[in-house]
Amino acid sequence: MRNIKIIIEYDGKDFNGWQKQPKKLNIQGEIERAISEITGEEIELIASGRTDAGVHAIAQSANFKTNSNIPIEKIPIAINTKLKQSIRIKSAEEVDERFHSRYNCKQKTYRYIINNGKTASALYRNMEYFVPEKLDVENMKKAIKYFEGEHDFKGFKASGTSSKSSVREIYKTSIEKNEDRIIIELTGNGFLYNMVRIIVGTLVDVGLGKIKPEEIPEIINSGDRTRAGKTLPPQGLYLVKVEYK
Amino acid sequence: MRNIKIIIEYDGKDFNGWQKQPKKLNIQGEIERAISEITGEEIELIASGRTDAGVHAIAQSANFKTNSNIPIEKIPIAINTKLKQSIRIKSAEEVDERFHSRYNCKQKTYRYIINNGKTASALYRNMEYFVPEKLDVENMKKAIKYFEGEHDFKGFKASGTSSKSSVREIYKTSIEKNEDRIIIELTGNGFLYNMVRIIVGTLVDVGLGKIKPEEIPEIINSGDRTRAGKTLPPQGLYLVKVEYK
Repeated sequence: MRNIKIIIEYDGKDFNGWQKQPKKLNIQGEIERAISEITGEEIELIASGRTDAGVHAIAQSANFKTNSNIPIEKIPIAINTKLKQSIRIKSAEEVDERFHSRYNCKQKTYRYIINNGKTASALYRNMEYFVPEKLDVENMKKAIKYFEGEHDFKGFKASGTSSKSSVREIYKTSIEKNEDRIIIELTGNGFLYNMVRIIVGTLVDVGLGKIKPEEIPEIINSGDRTRAGKTLPPQGLYLVKVEYK
Repeated sequence: MRNIKIIIEYDGKDFNGWQKQPKKLNIQGEIERAISEITGEEIELIASGRTDAGVHAIAQSANFKTNSNIPIEKIPIAINTKLKQSIRIKSAEEVDERFHSRYNCKQKTYRYIINNGKTASALYRNMEYFVPEKLDVENMKKAIKYFEGEHDFKGFKASGTSSKSSVREIYKTSIEKNEDRIIIELTGNGFLYNMVRIIVGTLVDVGLGKIKPEEIPEIINSGDRTRAGKTLPPQGLYLVKVEYK
């Protein structure tokens, strides 16, 4: 069987997240249906990981197996004709039959966009999080550096979620200010449930002066969810890149 | 009476254009209703001009008269609480009682965004126009220069529209390429109905090689709508700035 890897952009606003579930519009289900319509097969689409309701993807990665002999370069266009415009397959490539979008993932990059202007934006309201109080970006830049490296992020995951281990490594972080927008990026070997949204929520508390940058290591080490910031809303979050070994 | 000028951002996708009309959601009607709710008065809101269904505004300008004594700095927040999030009042200022948003307008700037990448965007599908064929931007840059200056734009307005005169002056034009996006801006003393969308449609024909840049003066002079390009869809168009004497 052929193993096809696809890169997907989607507008999270229109869906109840990635994962297939009955009666709720979801991205996985929509794409599986579209591929089934063009191949005539039942399709199982494996993504690098789920994204929550409202979270966007610039380049989610997923793979599926098929016996169809449709040429690889025709696959994105063919699938796109069967999809809503809020999901677009950007490219497709043939990969080794053992390739698995989730197990083989080496690192992921997430972006979070904060609008720190005077007024919320009408045009970008579903694509960013609005903070009217002026944030101290220099302090946020100091604070984010403490998240780099391997840490137990027990205090930075949604309560009640069970993962075997909450140790993750963050390879790279960045914060850029572009006029009113603050753009935060995190690259790591994996992220716990809500972890990016809680880290950025904590950075917002730093920007507001509620937490000092130097307090971050202690907050991470405490493993105490209540000491980290709040979980920011999903519409500011983007899965930007998924990289493989 | 106080005369209040407001600057408005809106997402055109959600409305049947600026102009008030019964039974169809429109921007003017929504804002008049919101202001009436906070002032208790009947309000007439005068904009710099209408925008069509689907056309966005970064900074539309409008004014209204009121006897309310609500402090000027509170006005944007007060109106915004009564509006959908797809309309935001960005600022308000007190102006001379004779100020009129349309009559006193000196110049307007419009922007049109073309996505010239390989795939349409899921995230920006309502904020740009997708052209899959590779456009020759250098030729488009040559062509747009011919639109500068005072011309009779008879061939660049929607057929059937009657304006006293179709002579307009374009003061400034620009085309920038930013990765896959082509961003076109036009500043002029006024624009006929659909004029920007027809000019950009003609520039797309230049980019596709259907029209040579040097043919533009002849096409303008002919006054023949059929020689200009097609009217591009509204979702790529933004009213960016309105300036006054």
